[in-house]
Amino acid sequence: MAATPSAQYRLTIRVKLADAEGLLGEVTNAITEAGGVISAVDLVEGGQEGTLRDIVVDGSDEHHWRDLTSAIAALDGAEVIDTIDRTFQMHVGGKIAQHNKHPLKSRDDLSMVYTPGVARVCLAIADAPERAFQYTIKRNTVAVVSDGSAVLGLGDIGPAAAMPVMEGKCCLFKEFADVDAFPICLTTNDPEEIVSTVERISPAFGGINLEDISAPRCFEIEDSLKARLDIPVFHDDQHGTAVVTMAALLNAAKLTGRSLQSLRVLIIGVGAAGIAVAKILRAAGVSDLIGVDSKGALHVKRQDYLDGTMHVSKRWFAEVSNEQCLSGHPAEVIDGADLVIGLSGARVLPAESLARMKPDGVLFAMANPTPEVDPEAAARYVRIVATGRSDYPNQINNVLCFPGVFRGALDVRASAITEEMKMAAAQAIADIVDESELSEEYIIPSVFNRDVAPAVAAAVAEQARISHLARAGSEVGFAKGETSLSSPPVVHHAEQASGG
Amino acid sequence: MAATPSAQYRLTIRVKLADAEGLLGEVTNAITEAGGVISAVDLVEGGQEGTLRDIVVDGSDEHHWRDLTSAIAALDGAEVIDTIDRTFQMHVGGKIAQHNKHPLKSRDDLSMVYTPGVARVCLAIADAPERAFQYTIKRNTVAVVSDGSAVLGLGDIGPAAAMPVMEGKCCLFKEFADVDAFPICLTTNDPEEIVSTVERISPAFGGINLEDISAPRCFEIEDSLKARLDIPVFHDDQHGTAVVTMAALLNAAKLTGRSLQSLRVLIIGVGAAGIAVAKILRAAGVSDLIGVDSKGALHVKRQDYLDGTMHVSKRWFAEVSNEQCLSGHPAEVIDGADLVIGLSGARVLPAESLARMKPDGVLFAMANPTPEVDPEAAARYVRIVATGRSDYPNQINNVLCFPGVFRGALDVRASAITEEMKMAAAQAIADIVDESELSEEYIIPSVFNRDVAPAVAAAVAEQARISHLARAGSEVGFAKGETSLSSPPVVHHAEQASGG
Repeated sequence: MAATPSAQYRLTIRVKLADAEGLLGEVTNAITEAGGVISAVDLVEGGQEGTLRDIVVDGSDEHHWRDLTSAIAALDGAEVIDTIDRTFQMHVGGKIAQHNKHPLKSRDDLSMVYTPGVARVCLAIADAPERAFQYTIKRNTVAVVSDGSAVLGLGDIGPAAAMPVMEGKCCLFKEFADVDAFPICLTTNDPEEIVSTVERISPAFGGINLEDISAPRCFEIEDSLKARLDIPVFHDDQHGTAVVTMAALLNAAKLTGRSLQSLRVLIIGVGAAGIAVAKILRAAGVSDLIGVDSKGALHVKRQDYLDGTMHVSKRWFAEVSNEQCLSGHPAEVIDGADLVIGLSGARVLPAESLARMKPDGVLFAMANPTPEVDPEAAARYVRIVATGRSDYPNQINNVLCFPGVFRGALDVRASAITEEMKMAAAQAIADIVDESELSEEYIIPSVFNRDVAPAVAAAVAEQARISHLARAGSEVGFAKGETSLSSPPVVHHAEQASGG
Repeated sequence: MAATPSAQYRLTIRVKLADAEGLLGEVTNAITEAGGVISAVDLVEGGQEGTLRDIVVDGSDEHHWRDLTSAIAALDGAEVIDTIDRTFQMHVGGKIAQHNKHPLKSRDDLSMVYTPGVARVCLAIADAPERAFQYTIKRNTVAVVSDGSAVLGLGDIGPAAAMPVMEGKCCLFKEFADVDAFPICLTTNDPEEIVSTVERISPAFGGINLEDISAPRCFEIEDSLKARLDIPVFHDDQHGTAVVTMAALLNAAKLTGRSLQSLRVLIIGVGAAGIAVAKILRAAGVSDLIGVDSKGALHVKRQDYLDGTMHVSKRWFAEVSNEQCLSGHPAEVIDGADLVIGLSGARVLPAESLARMKPDGVLFAMANPTPEVDPEAAARYVRIVATGRSDYPNQINNVLCFPGVFRGALDVRASAITEEMKMAAAQAIADIVDESELSEEYIIPSVFNRDVAPAVAAAVAEQARISHLARAGSEVGFAKGETSLSSPPVVHHAEQASGG
């Protein structure tokens, strides 16, 4: 990957400059020549003995920072005093904070927000526990749960180190869908302990977003939690990826004039995401699948299938795919594929092998930061390329899915997120791209397209209603026009917070 | 207690009034005559056929609301359309929300708050887990943990119904000390399950505030959590009450010219708070104590002590108190007491019995909402009366303690809250009342005195440093003036968030 200077490697360099003519110019030249991109120069302190300045520079990585500061330090009269890394600076104290919705400035305020007034609200909930959705943060709050075992590309870094990712996820929930989210990072990897812990803390939450939990434990954890809780449980690495992949596929199929039923699909990587993608594809009518893991293509005659050492999730995949029992690495089983979906790691497929796909081939190479096939090389062989990266067209990013899915689920107090709701979400994302705009380089909307989350939320809420999983509106004693002085007192519909 | 109209019983009554002269005046008269206090009258809709108005009225309780609406409905041409209870209205959707500290409007923002930039922060924490205090919400976040087993005066109402109280507590943390707090309401009452659950979710938190967990489980839970966690664990019902009681006592002793060592103290109620109060009193030098529970005064010859059925926490109390082995109810063992502390229930002590205390007696009657002795009657017999209520002088309220205690602990990343830190907090609260202001009606500052929390925080932080329990400043690679391009990059001290 090209080492382009970027904001994530923005450094503020504090330099002390002697009182010599043209020295600042020499410094900025030195930075520019070393490949840094200067975005600001501020004066901190001036004086007889020289000046103190902060120079804000985008570098390309941490090694590049060393080159930049060395280039400055090499100049006569320039001294590097300190550096500030903007990304770390943004993380000081964490990225989310609590906000009180009501003032607490007087005894009247205290008597309503806390004792004694709060007691009446407690009793109303004790009488009818479903009122928790009405009178507590459960109405709008999701737990972002991880054990830190499979974080980004970093692997098993543990719960403390996973916190910045989970906080970041909470930021995305808030920014894109006004969902309040809170990070729950767990000191255990044991599935039963994870399940019981989440179950025990569930009263505060209207939904559970599982995140970065390694396979195959993630399947068991999700299934157990779904069985035990009456709020949605959604493992984003599986279902978020599946929904957004499905959305991209819907538009790719439309653009290339294919039916889903006719597709032959090669999935590289049969982890949590790969299996979830296979499930949503099958639900959408795709029947001709091949999955490849690190040992090659899955099939029911493979040794680990026969000897029972293959995990049950992969056994399922083997049973519903690759009827011909083809064996081999991705490049050996790619022949005749319409679509290749990469959910594995860097450069596992040579671009040339894409030539053996059907004409007008489609490639989703989603390994991050380095895709399974170099996107530029792939473009010579296939008609449509999508990746997980923001610096190529067609970014397949879960941010398109999870904020809207939970917004919709919370809006109707859905008790679960079903396959139908996921499919509705995928269709809603695909439909954001108007037929007139649809092109090889635009099959999926931008992560910053603000129409996506509301459209997904509406589709998910509507599907929840159709499936009779929507519970909003069923609350007790809650009717406009009713003079109800019995507990709980009436609240005007118009005065309900719509979700925030 | 007098049924005085109050904001916690504020009702907005929507009335439809026929187009008749003077009808609005009749309505407001009817409300006033029925004992309601009108704070606003708004026009919602006017028209030929009459007007729609919202009348905001403080009543004294829910029965009073019925009287008020009946009084309106009895008038010709007036119809009650709807009512809104302000306290419930303030609870719709809960009382706290999440707030993002940084914008997420561009790809640059995304690359720092989330992937790919966040990965560097994760790795920095994986390298040195104590950096979680620097780069995550752990720096400023407290869990408010309850199982809902002993909520306010309501008893065992369960975790969902306890949520409004825990959210209210979070509001107080934020308002008074800029501490971010999050409610963790647990679906289990089992001590070991509570402990293991809190331990497993601890990475997000810099402190644990236990709340409204019934005795004697609360002792075991607190002790186990302290042993297992390296962050402060503080059961507010015990230690918050003990600290504020101690603060009031320090000033009461000063005002009445007593030494703590000379005091004879009767404690009515030997639950979690009573035992914690006894402990802090003993630590402060008070040696002559008597405790009374529902079976009478505790002593080592009482049947349940002898037969081993008395809980270990009460056994401790029996062993350190009541050397004469006095038996009986509070009024039977009050003779010669300097101070009576009520931590039990309504009206357990006849006011006349206070006459048998020493001269210049002191009464802290903290049962809420109805104190152990009627405060007005008590004033005839003792020199100083304090209660838990806001409508009498000298309110002994935990809000004076817990926000500042956690603020101080978080500021220095204290690993625990010790007896010395609690005593420092008590002294800081007492010292807010200047010697020149000290009087029978002012021994403890108001809960709205904004000097309290910072003073408590400073005292707690200082004591933590003295006790070598302060960890702030020990983080890796975090020094002003150091040109550290190694991970984690340097952050200027001046640029650290001071706690928010």
